[in-house]
Amino acid sequence: MFIAMNRFRIAPGKEGEFVEIWKKRDSHLKGVPGFMSFNLLQGATTDECTLFASHSVWESRQAFEEWTRSEAFRLAHAQAGQTKNVYLGPPNLELFEAVI
Amino acid sequence: MFIAMNRFRIAPGKEGEFVEIWKKRDSHLKGVPGFMSFNLLQGATTDECTLFASHSVWESRQAFEEWTRSEAFRLAHAQAGQTKNVYLGPPNLELFEAVI
Repeated sequence: MFIAMNRFRIAPGKEGEFVEIWKKRDSHLKGVPGFMSFNLLQGATTDECTLFASHSVWESRQAFEEWTRSEAFRLAHAQAGQTKNVYLGPPNLELFEAVI
Repeated sequence: MFIAMNRFRIAPGKEGEFVEIWKKRDSHLKGVPGFMSFNLLQGATTDECTLFASHSVWESRQAFEEWTRSEAFRLAHAQAGQTKNVYLGPPNLELFEAVI
């Protein structure tokens, strides 16, 4: 199992807007080989920002990497970053391999 | 759905030892109300350390919090931190609520 998490620092007060962006978005993940599940996660809120993370689970690192090279990936990311006042800086991608 | 991740910074060369600690550990999670799944995840390696994260999925924040107050939690953590040369600093707990 392989997990890809993209961490987003969202400006205070913009949390609802950020979640709406994701609700309206077509992830194009359905039917992608090796794709298992997707969630948007809300983490801690500090004075500075609220942490969110996209959380996708894959059968393997290879399945994830093949998706990043696919047309489905290009379509899903064509609209990214169009509402810049919501984000405090670029997202931070973290990749994890399940060892247990 | 609720996800608890505890992030560990592990000393270079100690990755195998760290994974073995977790393989031998009795998590006491089986049968805990609201518990869904557990994985140990291996993340990126830098010059400084390798990132690992325990990753447990729960039906709700309430189920996770009740577990942290239980005897099962106390038993699972009784042995924690006994091999300190493996860890670079204390772990960092991050809690996430699935909003999508």
